Amino acid sequence: MDDITLIAITSIITAGVTTSFGCMGPAFAEGRAVATALSSIAQQPDASSTITRTLFVGLAMIESTAIYCFVVSMILIFANPFWNHFIDQLAGK
Amino acid sequence: MDDITLIAITSIITAGVTTSFGCMGPAFAEGRAVATALSSIAQQPDASSTITRTLFVGLAMIESTAIYCFVVSMILIFANPFWNHFIDQLAGK
Amino acid sequence: MDDITLIAITSIITAGVTTSFGCMGPAFAEGRAVATALSSIAQQPDASSTITRTLFVGLAMIESTAIYCFVVSMILIFANPFWNHFIDQLAGK
Amino acid sequence: MDDITLIAITSIITAGVTTSFGCMGPAFAEGRAVATALSSIAQQPDASSTITRTLFVGLAMIESTAIYCFVVSMILIFANPFWNHFIDQLAGK
Amino acid sequence: MDDITLIAITSIITAGVTTSFGCMGPAFAEGRAVATALSSIAQQPDASSTITRTLFVGLAMIESTAIYCFVVSMILIFANPFWNHFIDQLAGK
Amino acid sequence: MDDITLIAITSIITAGVTTSFGCMGPAFAEGRAVATALSSIAQQPDASSTITRTLFVGLAMIESTAIYCFVVSMILIFANPFWNHFIDQLAGK
Amino acid sequence: MDDITLIAITSIITAGVTTSFGCMGPAFAEGRAVATALSSIAQQPDASSTITRTLFVGLAMIESTAIYCFVVSMILIFANPFWNHFIDQLAGK
Amino acid sequence: MDDITLIAITSIITAGVTTSFGCMGPAFAEGRAVATALSSIAQQPDASSTITRTLFVGLAMIESTAIYCFVVSMILIFANPFWNHFIDQLAGK
Amino acid sequence: MDDITLIAITSIITAGVTTSFGCMGPAFAEGRAVATALSSIAQQPDASSTITRTLFVGLAMIESTAIYCFVVSMILIFANPFWNHFIDQLAGK
Amino acid sequence: MDDITLIAITSIITAGVTTSFGCMGPAFAEGRAVATALSSIAQQPDASSTITRTLFVGLAMIESTAIYCFVVSMILIFANPFWNHFIDQLAGK
Amino acid sequence: MDDITLIAITSIITAGVTTSFGCMGPAFAEGRAVATALSSIAQQPDASSTITRTLFVGLAMIESTAIYCFVVSMILIFANPFWNHFIDQLAGK
Amino acid sequence: MDDITLIAITSIITAGVTTSFGCMGPAFAEGRAVATALSSIAQQPDASSTITRTLFVGLAMIESTAIYCFVVSMILIFANPFWNHFIDQLAGK
Amino acid sequence: MDDITLIAITSIITAGVTTSFGCMGPAFAEGRAVATALSSIAQQPDASSTITRTLFVGLAMIESTAIYCFVVSMILIFANPFWNHFIDQLAGK
Amino acid sequence: MDDITLIAITSIITAGVTTSFGCMGPAFAEGRAVATALSSIAQQPDASSTITRTLFVGLAMIESTAIYCFVVSMILIFANPFWNHFIDQLAGK
Repeated sequence: MDDITLIAITSIITAGVTTSFGCMGPAFAEGRAVATALSSIAQQPDASSTITRTLFVGLAMIESTAIYCFVVSMILIFANPFWNHFIDQLAGK
Repeated sequence: MDDITLIAITSIITAGVTTSFGCMGPAFAEGRAVATALSSIAQQPDASSTITRTLFVGLAMIESTAIYCFVVSMILIFANPFWNHFIDQLAGK
Repeated sequence: MDDITLIAITSIITAGVTTSFGCMGPAFAEGRAVATALSSIAQQPDASSTITRTLFVGLAMIESTAIYCFVVSMILIFANPFWNHFIDQLAGK
Repeated sequence: MDDITLIAITSIITAGVTTSFGCMGPAFAEGRAVATALSSIAQQPDASSTITRTLFVGLAMIESTAIYCFVVSMILIFANPFWNHFIDQLAGK
Repeated sequence: MDDITLIAITSIITAGVTTSFGCMGPAFAEGRAVATALSSIAQQPDASSTITRTLFVGLAMIESTAIYCFVVSMILIFANPFWNHFIDQLAGK
Repeated sequence: MDDITLIAITSIITAGVTTSFGCMGPAFAEGRAVATALSSIAQQPDASSTITRTLFVGLAMIESTAIYCFVVSMILIFANPFWNHFIDQLAGK
Repeated sequence: MDDITLIAITSIITAGVTTSFGCMGPAFAEGRAVATALSSIAQQPDASSTITRTLFVGLAMIESTAIYCFVVSMILIFANPFWNHFIDQLAGK
Repeated sequence: MDDITLIAITSIITAGVTTSFGCMGPAFAEGRAVATALSSIAQQPDASSTITRTLFVGLAMIESTAIYCFVVSMILIFANPFWNHFIDQLAGK
Repeated sequence: MDDITLIAITSIITAGVTTSFGCMGPAFAEGRAVATALSSIAQQPDASSTITRTLFVGLAMIESTAIYCFVVSMILIFANPFWNHFIDQLAGK
Repeated sequence: MDDITLIAITSIITAGVTTSFGCMGPAFAEGRAVATALSSIAQQPDASSTITRTLFVGLAMIESTAIYCFVVSMILIFANPFWNHFIDQLAGK
Repeated sequence: MDDITLIAITSIITAGVTTSFGCMGPAFAEGRAVATALSSIAQQPDASSTITRTLFVGLAMIESTAIYCFVVSMILIFANPFWNHFIDQLAGK
Repeated sequence: MDDITLIAITSIITAGVTTSFGCMGPAFAEGRAVATALSSIAQQPDASSTITRTLFVGLAMIESTAIYCFVVSMILIFANPFWNHFIDQLAGK
Repeated sequence: MDDITLIAITSIITAGVTTSFGCMGPAFAEGRAVATALSSIAQQPDASSTITRTLFVGLAMIESTAIYCFVVSMILIFANPFWNHFIDQLAGK
Repeated sequence: MDDITLIAITSIITAGVTTSFGCMGPAFAEGRAVATALSSIAQQPDASSTITRTLFVGLAMIESTAIYCFVVSMILIFANPFWNHFIDQLAGK
């Protein structure tokens, strides 16, 4: 039963680390994009619709990298093929 | 009983680390966004409604990455599938 | 009794680390937001009410990430499900 | 008696680390807020009352994160539930 | 069965680390590109179509490096040749 | 006698680390506040009384975080509850 | 069979680390190049064709370093000479 | 005699580290304060008396954090309660 | 057979690390050079031919350092004298 | 004789580290103060006497933190109470 | 045969690390030099021949440090005196 | 003879580290001071004698911290009281 | 034969590290000097001969520190007194 | 013979590290000084003789810290008192 515990432990740690570190980058990047959007609107209020549209496209792309990390993290917790292999093996025994 | 203790320990540590590190990025990013919003309002008071609206959309997206981390952390404490597996196994024994 | 000690030790360490590291980000972010608010008021005293209102909304959102960390920390000290499990098991023995 | 020593040791270390690291963030943030307040007063002496009021609200919120850390640290030294559990157990023996 | 566990563990850890660290760079870079695009539009609204087009080409190239990492991570989880080798060997035994 | 030595050692190390690291933040912050105060006085000599007063309030709040650390450090050296517990136990034996 | 496992493990880890770290540099560099291209177009819309052409040549060269890393990573996963040597030896045995 | 050696060793290391690290912060901070004072005098020679007075108050407060560290360090070398306890115990034996 | 495995492992790790770390520097440097080239063209469109020519010479020299690393990495994977020595020895045995 | 060696070793290491790290801060700070003094004299040659006087007071205070470290280091080499205790004990034996 | 393996391993690692780390510095430095050259040409197109000539002399000197590292790396792989000593000894046996 | 070797080893390492790290700070600081002196002379050639004199006083004080480190390093190599103690003891045996 | 292997290994590692790290500083410094030379020529083409001459003197001095490292590295590979001592001893045996 | 090997190993490592790290600081500092000298000459060609003279004095003082490190390194390789002690002892045996 030692093996399955090790798989569980590394899955827990990796899931946590992947999400927490993987969200730092996108968070900073979105903060930067939003901040520039705000100062751009203040500088050129007439272009606010173009700025807002470009901002949303940009935020969507940045958010996508955060979602990659969240997806990997969820896969490791709820759909981990290595864990399933060992559970199947345990059940089949 | 050694295995279940190890799962508990790594869950505790990972939950704490995920929340504390995962909140640093969003906190910085929100601080940056709010700061720019304030200086933008000071620079162009007439655009304050557009700025405030864009700020709130941006804060919502940044907060979402913090919430990913908090969700992973809560899952690890209160709905941990690996912990449940071992508890079930212990009960079924 | 070894297991329960390990749970206690990791809970203590994680609670401390989560709060201390998790508070650094929000503290910096609030410092930045307050600083910009002050220089914005100095630059545009007429907009001070809008600035103050936006500042308070922003501080509330940034403080929320600090509170996530404090909550996780308090859960680990006073409502730790893993600790309770072991205490129950110990009592039931 | 090994267990109780370990609890004591980790409580001591965590209490110290939580306070010392947890105070760095707020200290920096307060330094930044005070510094900006001073340069804002120098720039716009007429708005000094608004600036001072906003500064004090901001310092209070930043100080709150330092206090979270100090509270966790004091709880670990003087009202540690894990320590009490072991002391009770020792006394009950 | 020790070997296959080790392969599983390193695959889990590497998959998580590759995605989380590999997404930081692209996230920062996209944040920077979007931010500059926004301030450029604010500065020269007439060139917004050229700017938007160049931005999308650039984002596509930056996103490609994030996708390299995600691909390596998915290969390690779902199409790992080393894992398959050991599973085949186990089955063939 | 091993246990009491360990408590003594960790108390010594933690006391030193808490003070030395905990004083870095406040020292930087005070340096920043004082520096800005000086340049503000140079820029607006007429507001020097307001500036000095605000500076002293700010320094008091920043110093408070340094004092939290010094207090924790002194508690660990001269009023350590864990140390006292073990000394009492030793005496009671 | 221990040796072949070690080769597999180090190949997995190195493949992941090479791609994730090796993509950070190019991602930052492309972000910087794209950002400058955008602000240059905003500053001099007439030179946008020269700028775009130079940008694409530059992105190609930067991407080439990311591809070196991806190539090394793919070689280690799918065409690893050391792995093949051991597999051949195993088969020939 | 092992215990007393350990106490001595940790006291020596902690005393050194506390002073050397604890003096970095104040040194930087004083350097900054003095530097700003000098440039402020150059900018506004008429306010040099106010500047000098504020500088000395500020330096005194910053120096105080360096002195906290030096005091802790001297306590650990010459008035260490833990060391004294063990020496007394050794003498009493 | 232990020795040859160790050689293989260190060759794999070193090859990966050399390429991934060795490509960060050149990638940053090329990003910087391209970025400056673009802003220089925007500033002085008439000198674009001189700028482009100098840029290409510079990129070639920077790329050369990336190629040194790639070459060392390829030598370690496909033409490793130490590996060959051990293979020869193994064959000659 | 093992104990006295350990005391000697830690005294040597701590003495070296305390001086070398403890001198970095003051060196930087003095460099900064001197640099600002020079540019201030260049900017306002008439105030050079006030600047020089303030500089010397400042340098004296910064140097004091370097001297704290040097003093601790000399105490540990030439007047170490822990070393003396063990030497006395050795002689008394 | 253990000794010769160790020599081989350390030679492989050192060769890789020397090249990859040793190329970062020169790459950055060349990037900086090229970037400044480009912006200088844009600023003063008439001096482009002097600038180009000085740039090439400078690049040659910077490249020389990268070549020192590459040379040490090649010596360690193909003309390693320590390796040769052990091979000779092995042959002479 | 083990003890005396350990003393020798730690003396060698500490002497090297103290000098190399302890010289970084002063080197940077002197570089800064000299750099500012040069730009100050360029800005105000008439004040060059005052600037040069202040520079030399400043360099002397900064150099003094480098000399503290060199002195500690020389003491550890050529006049090490701990080494002498052990040599005397060895001779007296 | 163990001793001589250890000497060889540490010589290899130290030679590589000394060159690769020791070349980073000079490379950066030369890059900075060349970059400033180029922008200075662009700013003041008439002074290009003085600038070039001063640049070459400066590069020579900076290169000298890189050469110190290369010399130490070459001494350790080809004229290592410790290695020679052991080889002599081995031969004399 | 174990002792003398350890002395040799630590001498080799320390000599390399002392030179390579100890040369980084001076290299940076000289780069900075030379860079400022060049831009100062470009700004004020008439003061080039004063600037050059001050630069050379400054470079000499900065180089002196690099030479301290090189001297310590050479002492450790060619005139190491600890090594000599052990060689004498070995010969006297």
